[in-house]
Amino acid sequence: MTKKVVLVVEYDGSEYKGWQAQKLGIPSVQESLEKALAVVANHPVRVVCAGRTDSGVHASAQVVHFETDAERNERAWTLGVNTYLPSDIRVVAARDVADDFHARFSALSRRYRYVIYQSSICPAILSNGVTWSYRALDAQAMKEAASVFLGTHDFSSFRAIGCQANTPIRTILNFDVQQVGQYIILDVRANAFLHHMIRNFAGVLMSIGAGEKPIAWAKKTLDAKDRTKGGITAPPTGLYFVGVEYPEHFNVPFCKLGPHFLPYIEELSYDVPS
Amino acid sequence: MTKKVVLVVEYDGSEYKGWQAQKLGIPSVQESLEKALAVVANHPVRVVCAGRTDSGVHASAQVVHFETDAERNERAWTLGVNTYLPSDIRVVAARDVADDFHARFSALSRRYRYVIYQSSICPAILSNGVTWSYRALDAQAMKEAASVFLGTHDFSSFRAIGCQANTPIRTILNFDVQQVGQYIILDVRANAFLHHMIRNFAGVLMSIGAGEKPIAWAKKTLDAKDRTKGGITAPPTGLYFVGVEYPEHFNVPFCKLGPHFLPYIEELSYDVPS
Repeated sequence: MTKKVVLVVEYDGSEYKGWQAQKLGIPSVQESLEKALAVVANHPVRVVCAGRTDSGVHASAQVVHFETDAERNERAWTLGVNTYLPSDIRVVAARDVADDFHARFSALSRRYRYVIYQSSICPAILSNGVTWSYRALDAQAMKEAASVFLGTHDFSSFRAIGCQANTPIRTILNFDVQQVGQYIILDVRANAFLHHMIRNFAGVLMSIGAGEKPIAWAKKTLDAKDRTKGGITAPPTGLYFVGVEYPEHFNVPFCKLGPHFLPYIEELSYDVPS
Repeated sequence: MTKKVVLVVEYDGSEYKGWQAQKLGIPSVQESLEKALAVVANHPVRVVCAGRTDSGVHASAQVVHFETDAERNERAWTLGVNTYLPSDIRVVAARDVADDFHARFSALSRRYRYVIYQSSICPAILSNGVTWSYRALDAQAMKEAASVFLGTHDFSSFRAIGCQANTPIRTILNFDVQQVGQYIILDVRANAFLHHMIRNFAGVLMSIGAGEKPIAWAKKTLDAKDRTKGGITAPPTGLYFVGVEYPEHFNVPFCKLGPHFLPYIEELSYDVPS
């Protein structure tokens, strides 16, 4: 009997051309995962994810579902599958889920963190896992600027040219900016995101944080509804997909907010949007 | 005129067969650094480091010196050299230093951190930058056990078979064990270290932390003065060379304690040994 399984997946995206399976020879997280699942399931497996990530972008908690005829327990779908995965991809949780669950369409919100490391010299350690800023940034100014993104807006100024979404309207539910030592972390939750949206937010906020642009530039950029009036697209290296919220009755496994090297970051508490 | 320059170097050791230059085709940090320095100096350069690190071991602050006839400023020896280095090695500071300075022989103490990450699933992010423990560890028990290593002892039980040091006697000046979230960090300072010494400490302490061995086993192992009575050698992935102390008059650049993804860890304060 066919049933649905939901997985939470952690990956270091440095070596992948993004989530989505592409033509032969182009490494993708999806292809690696589907291959490993197929071994355990003993049949081809197609996964659907909550949100596709770009080349070089990481995830501490991507969520995927797939259908299978195989009778396997949670241990097989985690530890078993992990033995067939490269070391930079890990299934961290697995659970049977109701037939009407869909990793993408059932999602109420997605959450990302963007990790900036300020230092005069580019870091050798975690060089693909943070975004380096050689300029010192004013986190308070960035936080103030970010507040204008909260709520429902037309985010055309933060949308990649090739973005295929039907509408540029999105709702930002939380936008927090925290500083710890030389780190600045942007923490953003929205109903959904446009292509490059967070990296474009980061580009504008880093310019403001460096004092190159005034705080008011964030609102001006938003109001322009024009990508060419926006800032640079910040690098993918510091971007982490850290969580998805679903209606509670689906009982999707909950994972601690990542990435795991930021255990000291305060967790925002908020309600699931209704 | 020949003069001496001192560098502080950060590296992610994952892709290197250790610090020391070896035969052709074996990647080493030393070889990469010497090649980059030679371009900037415009002559062959030989570097001497404070402490050689093994295959897969990292450094946030390795210290090296070299001699050169070239007249270059600090910017050339940092930013200039970095343009010729792979992204997992970075010169973070450079300074002219007195002729009688020697990166190895002038060192008063060395300091390492060993970073353990506790989780039921092996992490995909920073998989080569932490030591994974699938068992939950009791940091308090590890801290208590580690205290017996403080002071001057015969550390034969913690010395690799192939260790070439003249004597197994070393002086441990500090040994701290801190827990932050799922991380446990060992922080060890000594006059010098034997080969594999910290990884062998970590092996014993992780067995004690997991409850597999009692706290008293640390002293028993130390007293045995016999490597075969020790524990396993813990993996290199979690090991970071984080600092060297020199007599103040050499004015060696001081760097913040790394690795940089642990900014929340309290710094021990202590005096330079006399």
